[in-house]
Amino acid sequence: MQLALSRIRVVLVRTTHPGNIGAAARAMYTMGITRLWLVAPARFPHPDATALATGANHVLDAASVVATLPEALAGCALAIGLSARPRAFAGRVMPVRAAAREALARATEGDVALVFGTEMSGLSNDELAQCGIAATIPANPDYPSLNVASAVQVAAYELHVAAMGGDVWQPPRFTAATHDEIEALYAHAERTLASMRFLNPAHPRRLLARLRRLFGRAALEHEEVNILRGILARIDQLRER
Amino acid sequence: MQLALSRIRVVLVRTTHPGNIGAAARAMYTMGITRLWLVAPARFPHPDATALATGANHVLDAASVVATLPEALAGCALAIGLSARPRAFAGRVMPVRAAAREALARATEGDVALVFGTEMSGLSNDELAQCGIAATIPANPDYPSLNVASAVQVAAYELHVAAMGGDVWQPPRFTAATHDEIEALYAHAERTLASMRFLNPAHPRRLLARLRRLFGRAALEHEEVNILRGILARIDQLRER
Repeated sequence: MQLALSRIRVVLVRTTHPGNIGAAARAMYTMGITRLWLVAPARFPHPDATALATGANHVLDAASVVATLPEALAGCALAIGLSARPRAFAGRVMPVRAAAREALARATEGDVALVFGTEMSGLSNDELAQCGIAATIPANPDYPSLNVASAVQVAAYELHVAAMGGDVWQPPRFTAATHDEIEALYAHAERTLASMRFLNPAHPRRLLARLRRLFGRAALEHEEVNILRGILARIDQLRER
Repeated sequence: MQLALSRIRVVLVRTTHPGNIGAAARAMYTMGITRLWLVAPARFPHPDATALATGANHVLDAASVVATLPEALAGCALAIGLSARPRAFAGRVMPVRAAAREALARATEGDVALVFGTEMSGLSNDELAQCGIAATIPANPDYPSLNVASAVQVAAYELHVAAMGGDVWQPPRFTAATHDEIEALYAHAERTLASMRFLNPAHPRRLLARLRRLFGRAALEHEEVNILRGILARIDQLRER
């Protein structure tokens, strides 16, 4: 298997129909992707999942089943959430083709997660907010409702094409911050801003959402996270005197 | 609907499972393609087809059912057969992305058919020989067996991207900060970071250059400058006590 593709996690969040889990496993394996994470699936294991996985049953058998999205994203260098219309999203939004290139570039640093929401409503705003990038699949504006396994198929296909060549990727000059580093920064910012009483305790999430949007757009680097956390730590020191 | 996409026929040959016909109709419509031809389907109409078409039932209802492939291809400017391994094919073979561009170019002359074979064995050599181009979907060589509706999804997606130039939904724009607002922010940051003794007085510009790089990449908005200056002002208050 291609090395970068072995770093890809496909994360299905609260999938309702077990058949879609099986179809997603098959879609992944046709593109050389084998690592499946299931967050709180409604029914799994299930005969419908097994039936639709056909030749990809080993992908199903090896799936990691967890209770929450943070468990599925722990340790990732980057999480990419698939969304038809990421209206409230704070970070960068890009088509799935560009997101696939970004995923492969970042897979040199660690796992990269592709996150897919429920059949009925996709990812919630809170779930999408845990991702560094929102990827959209270009679609009919009157009916952008891809089946979840079909969305997995398109994303996996773009990853496969990007991994197997033909697309020129330019390496970034600096090291990008990992998902965990960025989440730790936001947690630190929340603590410090609250201690400064800058955060409105009645509406803490509004300010934090704005900061996520700003820094998400910037695609933070490792060193920049260090600088920002250094500033926060210095404020903490001054407060403690 | 985009004109070129209205010239695309999706032709499914001898499909065994009616659910796949419904799923293919849905896949087509998500990408703005509506003209479905069914060559000798095993069972159609069928409740499984209707169930899996969800919001694309009008595509199913308008499908043309014919007995032979030549009937489905009559009047077309070009037929493109999807095949995992077109070993015996005499014509041009290309990846589906290139085939999608070719399809759109030829759609100015008349209808272009995308032809998909059976679930078990794809298109026969005789069927593929009726096509001018064989298109392959890049896939895992150990398991290139895409579900037929998934193959329709990928091909329809490539047609859509080729037709639409990859345009995707963009988040709403907010008012960008002016040059003067941004410069005033950096000046304020320099004063406050110096008063916190976070700035190294020997190398003040190094940190500021990093911050300029970070916020410059983010393309600051008016409201974000207000938030950042609010945080700086709150630090200033705390320092003055």
